[in-house]
Amino acid sequence: MNAKSEVPGIAAGNVVRHKADGSCDCITDEVTVEEPLEIRIGKDSIAITMRTPGDDTDLTAGFLLSEGIVRRRADVQEIAHCTLPAALGNIVNVTLSRGVQWNAASARRFGTISTSCGLCGKTSIDFIRQQFPPLDKTASVRLAVARLLQMPDQLRRAQGNFARTGGIHAAAIFDLDGALVVLREDIGRHNAVDKAIGRAFLDARLPLQNHLLLVSGRCSLEIVQKALAAGISIVASVSAPSTLAVNFARESRQTLVSFLRPPTFNVYAHIERLALDVEVPKS
Amino acid sequence: MNAKSEVPGIAAGNVVRHKADGSCDCITDEVTVEEPLEIRIGKDSIAITMRTPGDDTDLTAGFLLSEGIVRRRADVQEIAHCTLPAALGNIVNVTLSRGVQWNAASARRFGTISTSCGLCGKTSIDFIRQQFPPLDKTASVRLAVARLLQMPDQLRRAQGNFARTGGIHAAAIFDLDGALVVLREDIGRHNAVDKAIGRAFLDARLPLQNHLLLVSGRCSLEIVQKALAAGISIVASVSAPSTLAVNFARESRQTLVSFLRPPTFNVYAHIERLALDVEVPKS
Repeated sequence: MNAKSEVPGIAAGNVVRHKADGSCDCITDEVTVEEPLEIRIGKDSIAITMRTPGDDTDLTAGFLLSEGIVRRRADVQEIAHCTLPAALGNIVNVTLSRGVQWNAASARRFGTISTSCGLCGKTSIDFIRQQFPPLDKTASVRLAVARLLQMPDQLRRAQGNFARTGGIHAAAIFDLDGALVVLREDIGRHNAVDKAIGRAFLDARLPLQNHLLLVSGRCSLEIVQKALAAGISIVASVSAPSTLAVNFARESRQTLVSFLRPPTFNVYAHIERLALDVEVPKS
Repeated sequence: MNAKSEVPGIAAGNVVRHKADGSCDCITDEVTVEEPLEIRIGKDSIAITMRTPGDDTDLTAGFLLSEGIVRRRADVQEIAHCTLPAALGNIVNVTLSRGVQWNAASARRFGTISTSCGLCGKTSIDFIRQQFPPLDKTASVRLAVARLLQMPDQLRRAQGNFARTGGIHAAAIFDLDGALVVLREDIGRHNAVDKAIGRAFLDARLPLQNHLLLVSGRCSLEIVQKALAAGISIVASVSAPSTLAVNFARESRQTLVSFLRPPTFNVYAHIERLALDVEVPKS
């Protein structure tokens, strides 16, 4: 699995395909690339994550935002790959703007764990709540159901060739008119979200309260938390949510839609942002 | 999402279901539980992972094995939940047997990262290679294709009700006669594998070279590495592998089957363990 495909993030190699009739072919298969990325601020290594190479700058920016290390576009002076050959393109150096305060010890403890696995421990969850308060109650964001129902198909069409390995997660940000603002992909679901919100952050589009985050898979706590870090008020997933994702969305006043498989979907939190054509029966 | 369902690891709550005809129902939905688990050896906290409660002892044993902290059943004296009410059932205390040496610093650095996100960095990958040498070249493990093709269906039937949330990963160990030895489930794919190999470890069944590990989703490096830690020579996944998973399997002499969707599948590494009915054409 070393030969590079035409598409970045995909490698090609020979595999044996066992066919339905019991015969075998030797075919060239495309596989999603998985490589480590180390993120450094100055001399501090703050996180290592397994990611699909590509959009590393976006991934890094999204990570810094999710961890509460940066808040505004102006907080970041530069994000650049380490150019040493030994780094193999797998190390990114961050230069924060002068005066940006961050705590290496807490970021490292919190960060290395949460990048990857979801947030860890009650302490970390309390920490998030302090860092990222709930959304404003009075903001009147409304999304038409017809727009919501179009989004999974828009996502799939925009993924194009990259989805063909079957080994990739996608995260997309849409505006309330249903326009796709940014789409990013990665072998790790959290990385795909970091890449998407990181791109929007670098483009100085935050906060994104008039936007929706759509993920191609399941929705765990950390996905909802990353959306909150970007100010996104509606989170939707094609597959199931977890209990912590549901509880967190309810407390942070985010709308959570899951099993978004048109024409149906489920709403787990804050349905008031969806412009439904019908009244919702009382439970 | 607080009401407990009849099935452990599932919580139930009211959600709004938007139906195909545009109308809405208020329904009770079941969601997979996600809670943090902290693993302690003596006074050292060595890992925190987001997991689905249940089989915590198996998860802990599998984690210790994957990290190279324990090798033999006799290395573990006790694995027990912390009984303090404040622990909420989310802390497990490990007592290693007298004389078992382990390095708190390296285990913590390696462990907290790798539990969750996949292994991190070239250093970690080199570390694994030292800890877990390749399988024996001469061992003659052979699996009939007909048996392999039955396994995904066996897995689904054994999952039963738990699969109904749509938010759970499954990992199962089969013997070469196609019998299901152990099945475990978790919201995290790595945790599901740790639970399965941990159960086999606690039952003193290792090494498992005459066995296969089947995972319900994708196959990343860490899944193949965990299988190697348990001595498993055949790894199969329903969905796609990553490049590092393929390369690691080839080097450690493990058979890797992916896209196992009967009647078809792909073989990415060491096909010699599959008893095919046909000759494989040369590439």
